[in-house]
Amino acid sequence: MARPDERKPDELRPVRLIREWSRHPEGSVLVEFGDTRVLCTASVTEGVPRWRKGSGQGWVTAEYSMLPRATTTRSERESVKGKIGGRTHEISRLIGRGLRACIELRALGENSVVIDCDVLQADGGTRTAAITGAYVALHDAVTWMAAKNMLTRKQTVQTALHRSVAAVSVGIVAGEARLDLCYEEDVAAQVDMNIVCTGIGDFVEVQGTGEDGVFDRAQLNAMLDLGLAGCEKLTTLQREALGLPTLDAAGLLAVFKK
Amino acid sequence: MARPDERKPDELRPVRLIREWSRHPEGSVLVEFGDTRVLCTASVTEGVPRWRKGSGQGWVTAEYSMLPRATTTRSERESVKGKIGGRTHEISRLIGRGLRACIELRALGENSVVIDCDVLQADGGTRTAAITGAYVALHDAVTWMAAKNMLTRKQTVQTALHRSVAAVSVGIVAGEARLDLCYEEDVAAQVDMNIVCTGIGDFVEVQGTGEDGVFDRAQLNAMLDLGLAGCEKLTTLQREALGLPTLDAAGLLAVFKK
Amino acid sequence: MARPDERKPDELRPVRLIREWSRHPEGSVLVEFGDTRVLCTASVTEGVPRWRKGSGQGWVTAEYSMLPRATTTRSERESVKGKIGGRTHEISRLIGRGLRACIELRALGENSVVIDCDVLQADGGTRTAAITGAYVALHDAVTWMAAKNMLTRKQTVQTALHRSVAAVSVGIVAGEARLDLCYEEDVAAQVDMNIVCTGIGDFVEVQGTGEDGVFDRAQLNAMLDLGLAGCEKLTTLQREALGLPTLDAAGLLAVFKK
Amino acid sequence: MARPDERKPDELRPVRLIREWSRHPEGSVLVEFGDTRVLCTASVTEGVPRWRKGSGQGWVTAEYSMLPRATTTRSERESVKGKIGGRTHEISRLIGRGLRACIELRALGENSVVIDCDVLQADGGTRTAAITGAYVALHDAVTWMAAKNMLTRKQTVQTALHRSVAAVSVGIVAGEARLDLCYEEDVAAQVDMNIVCTGIGDFVEVQGTGEDGVFDRAQLNAMLDLGLAGCEKLTTLQREALGLPTLDAAGLLAVFKK
Amino acid sequence: MARPDERKPDELRPVRLIREWSRHPEGSVLVEFGDTRVLCTASVTEGVPRWRKGSGQGWVTAEYSMLPRATTTRSERESVKGKIGGRTHEISRLIGRGLRACIELRALGENSVVIDCDVLQADGGTRTAAITGAYVALHDAVTWMAAKNMLTRKQTVQTALHRSVAAVSVGIVAGEARLDLCYEEDVAAQVDMNIVCTGIGDFVEVQGTGEDGVFDRAQLNAMLDLGLAGCEKLTTLQREALGLPTLDAAGLLAVFKK
Amino acid sequence: MARPDERKPDELRPVRLIREWSRHPEGSVLVEFGDTRVLCTASVTEGVPRWRKGSGQGWVTAEYSMLPRATTTRSERESVKGKIGGRTHEISRLIGRGLRACIELRALGENSVVIDCDVLQADGGTRTAAITGAYVALHDAVTWMAAKNMLTRKQTVQTALHRSVAAVSVGIVAGEARLDLCYEEDVAAQVDMNIVCTGIGDFVEVQGTGEDGVFDRAQLNAMLDLGLAGCEKLTTLQREALGLPTLDAAGLLAVFKK
Repeated sequence: MARPDERKPDELRPVRLIREWSRHPEGSVLVEFGDTRVLCTASVTEGVPRWRKGSGQGWVTAEYSMLPRATTTRSERESVKGKIGGRTHEISRLIGRGLRACIELRALGENSVVIDCDVLQADGGTRTAAITGAYVALHDAVTWMAAKNMLTRKQTVQTALHRSVAAVSVGIVAGEARLDLCYEEDVAAQVDMNIVCTGIGDFVEVQGTGEDGVFDRAQLNAMLDLGLAGCEKLTTLQREALGLPTLDAAGLLAVFKK
Repeated sequence: MARPDERKPDELRPVRLIREWSRHPEGSVLVEFGDTRVLCTASVTEGVPRWRKGSGQGWVTAEYSMLPRATTTRSERESVKGKIGGRTHEISRLIGRGLRACIELRALGENSVVIDCDVLQADGGTRTAAITGAYVALHDAVTWMAAKNMLTRKQTVQTALHRSVAAVSVGIVAGEARLDLCYEEDVAAQVDMNIVCTGIGDFVEVQGTGEDGVFDRAQLNAMLDLGLAGCEKLTTLQREALGLPTLDAAGLLAVFKK
Repeated sequence: MARPDERKPDELRPVRLIREWSRHPEGSVLVEFGDTRVLCTASVTEGVPRWRKGSGQGWVTAEYSMLPRATTTRSERESVKGKIGGRTHEISRLIGRGLRACIELRALGENSVVIDCDVLQADGGTRTAAITGAYVALHDAVTWMAAKNMLTRKQTVQTALHRSVAAVSVGIVAGEARLDLCYEEDVAAQVDMNIVCTGIGDFVEVQGTGEDGVFDRAQLNAMLDLGLAGCEKLTTLQREALGLPTLDAAGLLAVFKK
Repeated sequence: MARPDERKPDELRPVRLIREWSRHPEGSVLVEFGDTRVLCTASVTEGVPRWRKGSGQGWVTAEYSMLPRATTTRSERESVKGKIGGRTHEISRLIGRGLRACIELRALGENSVVIDCDVLQADGGTRTAAITGAYVALHDAVTWMAAKNMLTRKQTVQTALHRSVAAVSVGIVAGEARLDLCYEEDVAAQVDMNIVCTGIGDFVEVQGTGEDGVFDRAQLNAMLDLGLAGCEKLTTLQREALGLPTLDAAGLLAVFKK
Repeated sequence: MARPDERKPDELRPVRLIREWSRHPEGSVLVEFGDTRVLCTASVTEGVPRWRKGSGQGWVTAEYSMLPRATTTRSERESVKGKIGGRTHEISRLIGRGLRACIELRALGENSVVIDCDVLQADGGTRTAAITGAYVALHDAVTWMAAKNMLTRKQTVQTALHRSVAAVSVGIVAGEARLDLCYEEDVAAQVDMNIVCTGIGDFVEVQGTGEDGVFDRAQLNAMLDLGLAGCEKLTTLQREALGLPTLDAAGLLAVFKK
Repeated sequence: MARPDERKPDELRPVRLIREWSRHPEGSVLVEFGDTRVLCTASVTEGVPRWRKGSGQGWVTAEYSMLPRATTTRSERESVKGKIGGRTHEISRLIGRGLRACIELRALGENSVVIDCDVLQADGGTRTAAITGAYVALHDAVTWMAAKNMLTRKQTVQTALHRSVAAVSVGIVAGEARLDLCYEEDVAAQVDMNIVCTGIGDFVEVQGTGEDGVFDRAQLNAMLDLGLAGCEKLTTLQREALGLPTLDAAGLLAVFKK
């Protein structure tokens, strides 16, 4: 089975990161990985959840959702069902953990940032696209906070967001390790893996699942290699979108390949 | 209080109707009334709700929702609250009634069309923008059904969708009747009214509310006049978006002013 | 199709407003419009909802519900379903808006009045009967507050309740505009409209819906005329029930016909 | 502490059983025990719950609820809370069991009767008043079924309802066993007991609770004696309300005292 | 129908009370009545429910639940259904009332004890086994509080827990009064009764139900006799488990037979 | 920070797998990893979920839950909250995927096995203990099905359960990779990883998370090594518990180290 869009196994789909897509949020990014399209907004609110009050630290949390007809067939809304499903919970928690890995919560003071990732159109890899876009939205929100003097003393955007984070899916399809699966590949995959990395190639989260099959150490390593390389490219795109100087490619590559 | 965007009292905001905005749905329209931006999708599904089985007729229903940060401050998701709020229910029902007024349900056979109206960005008038966009999405979905031979015998898109429908808000702001209120005007309005009209100027629904004031017959008539004229313009924009011949302006005007 | 009870098109059903029907509430009215029977209670409680604290103003809200066998066939209880349906939400909100239109919320201090409208028997027009009865219950509750010195300084029942409010349904049945539809007519109506008016003939709310048809300006005007005349009669009945002097009929008529 | 209304310890409050209080249900009774006022309706529906299909037997179930302001202070609606509370569940189940004890479910065929007991005004003893009234409503519904030929072969109202059922509360207040406690006594009671009996003095259900105290065998016996005598009087009132010949008092008494 | 395990009518199943079964709770008892196995834990928490604040008194509450496969066929989890069923509510309330009858709530100060009774395996009589085991767990928790100086001034374990409580089921099976019904008997019983007693033979709660039959005064008395004798034996077992001196058998018997 | 129980970094806690712990389920295993204690039951039911009907294949699903006082402080029950939390959803899904990886669903015919994993006592690693115990319970249930001739033609326990599965947690604590973290270590871990393996050392699922830190490739490899070795030992314990011949240690080791 060849890739539906004739990509090479280690090739990302066209990625777009459109900042300031919405008018109201402190950060808002429309991220596209091919036909996957996710609106990521970052909302700054004063105060923190009850269990965190008095800690002097902020909080970052995320909520993921799909529009009912983001997919090929319509799904019932979770608001109509009256409850959040297991998959939604799992992904929301994954995004939240990923973003908290790159922020110094003390820098926010007792303020919160809520990240909303709403899938407008789905074609595989929505959760990893969401993380990749949400980081950019969070960067804009933290920049907004800095401009409003909401960061704690001596903190800057650079110290508050001391890492960047990006994510990509990889998998074994037709016996071959492939990067950034589209929906058609996702359904056919024996193994499906999501890799969340920092901008310098450390892992934040690794989740590999073989529901229709198992995988050995060599396959795991092949997927990790692809995922790290994919995240490196996504990091570059994030930095371009944010107008930040691109890391020296050679140096970064060295880091990623260590 | 002048209009924030310097419009005349009887002037619509810039309106855009972008068809085929999403890839999966049978009909999908991104509608914009100024900064109000609603994604309207129409999903065709086989079968009808249980209470309608055996009737030989189809069904059209609608669900309205707002993304949590479509507004100036973030709202909690209804899926997280575990229930649909009163406002959402009310608007979903209004949109459904509006669209059912323009369709011959027998033409669909025992098939359903679900209209999803998701507000991506809100600046007043989301429910009326949703109806206006949803009609275009429904038209595309019915055209798709016709192409798939899903309409019942002798039915065509023209007989199935025997009317068109558009909607607009009007109100009394600073003592003056105004068309198509933006959020800032909506908040300041003494009277708020939503008018849903067919393409030939009949009323489908009229809802006028004076929570911070009451209104007399003259004010009601002034609002009805503005709303009818607004719907006439929206009807023209819908026909343009669908590539249909524009109704003869003079004749249409006559109808609307009767 | 003649009217089932041989009324004239502009004739109300027999209306009864029985005060002090229940022992515990600060105001309680059993209102009957023919076979429609609604128990309206007004409960005064100290304090206001959280979002209103510190405003110095009170709050009035309403909840509408039907007993499961108020209707010809039994409906499942919303408490058993675990959620409030769209129709219930819509009507509760309508009643609340209607009553807030006649009260000066500052007069209540930071106290609340909750209006409960429970339909004991339904035969059409339950929401408009509820508003008409609830106004009388609210009047009793505000009188009770005045006696307990709970109104703010210099406020009296007359200044606190600076308007009265009544409501009635109208519709187009068999091509004819009719006042105060019973259930049989409601089901057969092409257009159904609810009109909420103050005691001097201003509109508080106008809601006309043509699910099985549309309506033109002339029909709308005919319904508005009937509704205004109906509300005028209901206002007189409310004042009689409350033992207030009846407004001068000629003067009032003049106001209503302006 | 004397009884608030100066009753003797073994004296019921004035009891009224008003049949046909509502127009729609197959049986409807407004029952009053003093100021306690419960509307009991019996709704006949075709079919039985899924788990009972194919059994050839019918089903009788009950739902109990209180209007929010039936009590001295307003309670939140269970539909608004989104769930049924423990007390409501417990009472609904008690009423259902009580009524199923007096009916031959085979006589109904695969049809159901739903009993709704809605407390319009509460002053203690609502659950026992509900059972007492519900029996009369059930009798009317079964009579309606007989007239519609819905009972199975050879069954009559007398064989279908082979027993009658009534209920009353008793308790130990101020050290004294008392019949039919009003709210004020209920709150002050050391022991609270509900007794459900058939028309010939057998027990259907006995529930005695001593949350603020315990009780010995002698106190239990005193309460049982009062309860049996109270149910005997209620049985007579039920038969009068239904227009049935009163049982011979001496014989019935003998039965009750056995 | 003989007893499935050849017990005599007045014979308990083998009863075990295993203290300190779990490591974390302040009190934890695995109680077995034959094959019925319930884990009872007592959790001490600072503070009381909101409605009790400022009273200077503590609170004891209970929650009962069954593991999904405690029974012969699997039941759906109440967490998955999204609501607590009527039976669960009823039993939780019964256990809570039973335990509050033996404790001086002032002794706890404003602290709470939550009793959790989770049925690991069910073979009839789970609610009465739960009460019997929960008392022992509560005793351990109160002893823990005494050791932590959490009881109010001059209070000791003996004054705080001024009574003990035990419970057992009785019933009429095959016309015979029997003690401690197993599941097979419970299903076949004409009458089912739960008796909750103090350690000196007073009643805390008596609940007799005849869904598939009724019962007369003689049968009620026979069941009460069996239940009191059963609770006496359970009291002895509780005291043994707690290492307390056994009450003088003759004297206790006298008390129970009064 | 040394290990609280003085284990070596690559040492499991004492593991027990007690089969037939409950009487009713087709498979039931109490699994202990040190103080972590989980009851795993496997319930065979006829039929499959609706979406799977007609496929000829069975289904295996899992539900995970914690008793409220399994932990050091009491948690509110999810049945009381009215909804399943994110963590519960995530773990239930993980267990279900793990078990489906070792079963041939066609072998079950259209029958289901529901795995319930209820944590009776928690001390870290509950989800991996649950998987390890659940496999043994599933083995017993499939053996029961074989004895009842419920497996499809030519299928045996060996072909139906063509793999075994075990799971263990690993992590980086105090800079050191450690196997089978207890609660105290789990809280202190920089990285937490769950590894699910087949009996021959293939991966079924790998989930590594660094909420309070990130991890590099070398650390990932160290954790994978520990986890594979741990799963190998657990596989041996599972086979012993089931009375199956132990795999040749050398050969198995070879497989695991490939």
